[in-house]
Amino acid sequence: MFVTRVAVVGAAGYIGGELLRLLIGHPEIEVVGAVSSRFPGKRVDGVHPNLRSATDLLFCSADQVGECDAVFLALPHRVAMTQVEQWTQRAKLVIDLTGDFRLSDAEVFRRYYGEEHQAPHLLGDFVPGLPELHREQLRTADLISVPGCMAAAGVLALYPLAARDLIDPERGAQFDARTGSSGSGATAGQANLHAERSNSMRVFAPTGHRHEAEISQHLGLPAAMTATGVEAVRGVQTIGRATLRPGVDKAAVRRAYREQYAAEPFVRVVAHQRGTFRYPDPKILLGSNYCDVGYALDEDLGRLTTIAALDNLVKGGAGNAVQCLNIRMGWPETLGLAFPGLHPL
Amino acid sequence: MFVTRVAVVGAAGYIGGELLRLLIGHPEIEVVGAVSSRFPGKRVDGVHPNLRSATDLLFCSADQVGECDAVFLALPHRVAMTQVEQWTQRAKLVIDLTGDFRLSDAEVFRRYYGEEHQAPHLLGDFVPGLPELHREQLRTADLISVPGCMAAAGVLALYPLAARDLIDPERGAQFDARTGSSGSGATAGQANLHAERSNSMRVFAPTGHRHEAEISQHLGLPAAMTATGVEAVRGVQTIGRATLRPGVDKAAVRRAYREQYAAEPFVRVVAHQRGTFRYPDPKILLGSNYCDVGYALDEDLGRLTTIAALDNLVKGGAGNAVQCLNIRMGWPETLGLAFPGLHPL
Amino acid sequence: MFVTRVAVVGAAGYIGGELLRLLIGHPEIEVVGAVSSRFPGKRVDGVHPNLRSATDLLFCSADQVGECDAVFLALPHRVAMTQVEQWTQRAKLVIDLTGDFRLSDAEVFRRYYGEEHQAPHLLGDFVPGLPELHREQLRTADLISVPGCMAAAGVLALYPLAARDLIDPERGAQFDARTGSSGSGATAGQANLHAERSNSMRVFAPTGHRHEAEISQHLGLPAAMTATGVEAVRGVQTIGRATLRPGVDKAAVRRAYREQYAAEPFVRVVAHQRGTFRYPDPKILLGSNYCDVGYALDEDLGRLTTIAALDNLVKGGAGNAVQCLNIRMGWPETLGLAFPGLHPL
Amino acid sequence: MFVTRVAVVGAAGYIGGELLRLLIGHPEIEVVGAVSSRFPGKRVDGVHPNLRSATDLLFCSADQVGECDAVFLALPHRVAMTQVEQWTQRAKLVIDLTGDFRLSDAEVFRRYYGEEHQAPHLLGDFVPGLPELHREQLRTADLISVPGCMAAAGVLALYPLAARDLIDPERGAQFDARTGSSGSGATAGQANLHAERSNSMRVFAPTGHRHEAEISQHLGLPAAMTATGVEAVRGVQTIGRATLRPGVDKAAVRRAYREQYAAEPFVRVVAHQRGTFRYPDPKILLGSNYCDVGYALDEDLGRLTTIAALDNLVKGGAGNAVQCLNIRMGWPETLGLAFPGLHPL
Repeated sequence: MFVTRVAVVGAAGYIGGELLRLLIGHPEIEVVGAVSSRFPGKRVDGVHPNLRSATDLLFCSADQVGECDAVFLALPHRVAMTQVEQWTQRAKLVIDLTGDFRLSDAEVFRRYYGEEHQAPHLLGDFVPGLPELHREQLRTADLISVPGCMAAAGVLALYPLAARDLIDPERGAQFDARTGSSGSGATAGQANLHAERSNSMRVFAPTGHRHEAEISQHLGLPAAMTATGVEAVRGVQTIGRATLRPGVDKAAVRRAYREQYAAEPFVRVVAHQRGTFRYPDPKILLGSNYCDVGYALDEDLGRLTTIAALDNLVKGGAGNAVQCLNIRMGWPETLGLAFPGLHPL
Repeated sequence: MFVTRVAVVGAAGYIGGELLRLLIGHPEIEVVGAVSSRFPGKRVDGVHPNLRSATDLLFCSADQVGECDAVFLALPHRVAMTQVEQWTQRAKLVIDLTGDFRLSDAEVFRRYYGEEHQAPHLLGDFVPGLPELHREQLRTADLISVPGCMAAAGVLALYPLAARDLIDPERGAQFDARTGSSGSGATAGQANLHAERSNSMRVFAPTGHRHEAEISQHLGLPAAMTATGVEAVRGVQTIGRATLRPGVDKAAVRRAYREQYAAEPFVRVVAHQRGTFRYPDPKILLGSNYCDVGYALDEDLGRLTTIAALDNLVKGGAGNAVQCLNIRMGWPETLGLAFPGLHPL
Repeated sequence: MFVTRVAVVGAAGYIGGELLRLLIGHPEIEVVGAVSSRFPGKRVDGVHPNLRSATDLLFCSADQVGECDAVFLALPHRVAMTQVEQWTQRAKLVIDLTGDFRLSDAEVFRRYYGEEHQAPHLLGDFVPGLPELHREQLRTADLISVPGCMAAAGVLALYPLAARDLIDPERGAQFDARTGSSGSGATAGQANLHAERSNSMRVFAPTGHRHEAEISQHLGLPAAMTATGVEAVRGVQTIGRATLRPGVDKAAVRRAYREQYAAEPFVRVVAHQRGTFRYPDPKILLGSNYCDVGYALDEDLGRLTTIAALDNLVKGGAGNAVQCLNIRMGWPETLGLAFPGLHPL
Repeated sequence: MFVTRVAVVGAAGYIGGELLRLLIGHPEIEVVGAVSSRFPGKRVDGVHPNLRSATDLLFCSADQVGECDAVFLALPHRVAMTQVEQWTQRAKLVIDLTGDFRLSDAEVFRRYYGEEHQAPHLLGDFVPGLPELHREQLRTADLISVPGCMAAAGVLALYPLAARDLIDPERGAQFDARTGSSGSGATAGQANLHAERSNSMRVFAPTGHRHEAEISQHLGLPAAMTATGVEAVRGVQTIGRATLRPGVDKAAVRRAYREQYAAEPFVRVVAHQRGTFRYPDPKILLGSNYCDVGYALDEDLGRLTTIAALDNLVKGGAGNAVQCLNIRMGWPETLGLAFPGLHPL
């Protein structure tokens, strides 16, 4: 049988570990490299203990990786853009999970990341790794940039309306995003000690978070986002607000969501009349590749409130990347991504 | 020495228990009645185990309470308005902690509570139990209505600007409120089981929460609020957004907050350049009577983001009520409320 | 293709939900009945929201279930023993997950459960659902009784030594068990409210827990167990202590564990020199069917400390039951049980 | 009024912060030095944000502290023994909160701490800071060594029986201790990241924890202790097991606890027939100076199970130290320690 050979660069991080979990369990894939600059030669399951007995893989250095079919870059932000060309030489497909190629405009990049882009000539070559918006392009893409976790949630929540031009652009969209601590990565410092981070509601970016720029880019609307760390390890939830154009009623909103997502394998519209889980909640999504999307409408005022939830390491990262790979390779889109989530958890 | 005799009605609930904790430790007060319809004759510390060895009090029935100086009503919503007159006959001062007398307009009450008010003639007689807005009136009030926990946070965060007419009224104010599970009370049902409620980000009111109406009333602005239960037992945080009137700059905003709160004993302006706790976080406020208030300004766009945090059972309930009592009795405003909060927790 | 038809009785509980999750994802199985006395006719995913889009199944009543190949009883304790014979008439294989048939001695049952057994004639017919101890019997069993979650952990931790008679029986074995709140079930009351149960270390059975009797039965040693609820939804950990017979040294202990578990698909011996996860921790096991087992030895004193961890709803319940089914049907033992657990979580 | 001048050395740590909280609120004390080698010149409330508006104190270096009445050493283990003599020159009373002077035998110290003691000549001069065992000595002590948090809990739970010689010494005592993450201190590393430490049950010392040696020393019994980090920031609970001497019955046990602790201000015997909080649980003790102690007896077998709970930073550290100071100074023993704990939390 033909096996697709893939490598993960930055394999000792949390996104890297989640990629390994999904790729090791994927029926079409062989992991031929788990690159870590910190732990070369060490066992992968020493860092990712959930993979004990699932793999005997060792971390390796970058130069130990030969040619392969696909490479996932799970590097720190700003590092991917300095390494990407070394990886395109070795692999036909590069899927980047950092922030480096998410923004198509180098000037916007400078504003949000506070420095010059190191490979601006490549910005236009990356296809956004959002199957719900770019599936056709992904089928032939050689460079894919997976969106940020809060951005993915925020975009998916409002896209059905934005794509149909049902939102008042002048009022824009406002997002309140909550996230667990795993989003800070496996090498986070003092502020992420358990005793400091536990039980907190920590507003770490009241304005100007980088994912704000991504949302704006994908929706074509001015967006403002506040980001807060809440008590959770995994999980992202965004509350999005927008004002509808005059005359847009409940039926139009419902139709937009249904049309957009009825056939999507990993987006569920969750907006029930009752029930404990009537709106999207990351609690039931951990480990799964779903992004649940819901909304509530104040029809009199034309105000729409949207809610989206996902696991930041899966649909907000590694799972989304594997979904893109499945599309690119022509495999069933859900391959290796069937885990439904746990309840209760 | 003259001792002020007080009773707590609804003493077996979480707000009731917090009132008892504060009142038992208050140097000017004797608790003469802890009314519970569920547990009459039972020991108070059987329900509130933190009060073991602090009190030998037993719960009693309402008719066992004689005349006293002040009564706190910590009843379920909708019950206080049917009982208030039986308590005004026994006590000169009645402090209500329910939602029944928070809204001054019976029509707004009907819209947000879904039923007719049972004592609309009293609505105008209650002074809002918000010392920061109504201190002078509180000095002579006989009826006090303590605001909702999320409302108190939301109002205190934006009031300095609203009071100075610095906010664009046409755009209104939008709030995203997060709350712990204790706000649901001690008799909450299935949805609040630990296994169901843990690790959740549960949007229980995407629109139309009752505290929204309170915020609107106190700020004099149209307000929209979304309420989400996050993983916490205690603690409320609100993120508020507003658009400033043209020409209002950073200095004006800073001045407004400083002027408003410099002399307040229980509101701190927390908006630092750096540090893990540079914005308000309920984590460090649990058990304390502080409401911390902060903000971030996008000066180019005139967009203001505010952050407020408090302990919903203290500054969002029992502590605020005791602060009102202190004012009403002419005692030092901080009496019995000195606990600073714990870190780490 | 031949499909095995199974029903789950008590399908609305937490064990029931976990059985459904595993059985729906199992390639050889069709779920033909999800019996719930509380929710007949309601959608299964209304109660188990993680199964949205995985199933359109409705709960049914017991009499709607016809003949099938296997039935899982996930009923409350004491109910299974009154219903078992109605299910053996409809299914060749009955797998009971309650406590009713775990103890082989009706007198011990009376002592630990506080009442007479209702079907004592069947006690001897049930094979314990512990593949690691009873695999051969399970291959042909028609009645299987899955052990309690804390019992399974405790037994697996000490069995390698007990089976080789390396433990001083006079000193017996002492267990300290910690468990998450999901073990209390989906209908637990006031004491399991989030605000009451959160952040607790609640000793709910200092002595005499029912799982103690199971451990004693399986190890053939007097056992004492203390059970404490700690802050967790899922997860069990047991610390077990025993005194070794004179002359039993480290090498003998290591050999016992290795021999016993080297070929086991779902027991891993975790006893490393260093590393954050050097001993078994349920944190990395949630959703997985592993029971991790470790130990530390004070060779001078001959004192052995064992540590075991598992997910109480999986290896401590539903997953273990599916493993038994796989064995009974002659399928690969790991079929449908491959999920490795998440890290971090 | 005469004010007692105290300094805290190691004031930026968690125990240091808790000392500052208690000392700042203590009516007889002025804090004249908050020594931190990491943050000299920085505001104390920058590190301990709960002290905002409670103090304007700055951290200082050791040599900035002049003569004072008492010094608290909240240093890392092994540092206090190298500095103690520089502090005895400046203060009549030195209260050490490290492990350096807890063990009276230098040889036992070597075994448990893995190095030679640097000031063995002082070991005999320190009075153990356990008021319940050493109150009379503390009234005149100039050197006090506050016990470890898990040791304090374990000792208080069994001391009433050990002191009356009711325990079978040959069987010894076994302890299972659970602790929150704050016990690891404010500078803990990678293993204590929120994402790593959350939701864990981490056995970090299956045998040989240092507090084991303290327990043994205070009880005069061979003790074995296992230490596990559970999901909590604050809080310690110990489960202790012992075998009673033949003939010791329930009445004798009850009498021992009552006699021992009836007059103690900070030890409560909690062993009720029913109720959610019928045994000691740190949940209701956070911020308070109580150690709750309970027990359950299997009279047939003579097996005793004890449960103790406390806040590791208060009765397990800073609060206990202040209680010792109160005794030493002849003040009311509860001065500055009245906070009763919160419920729910």
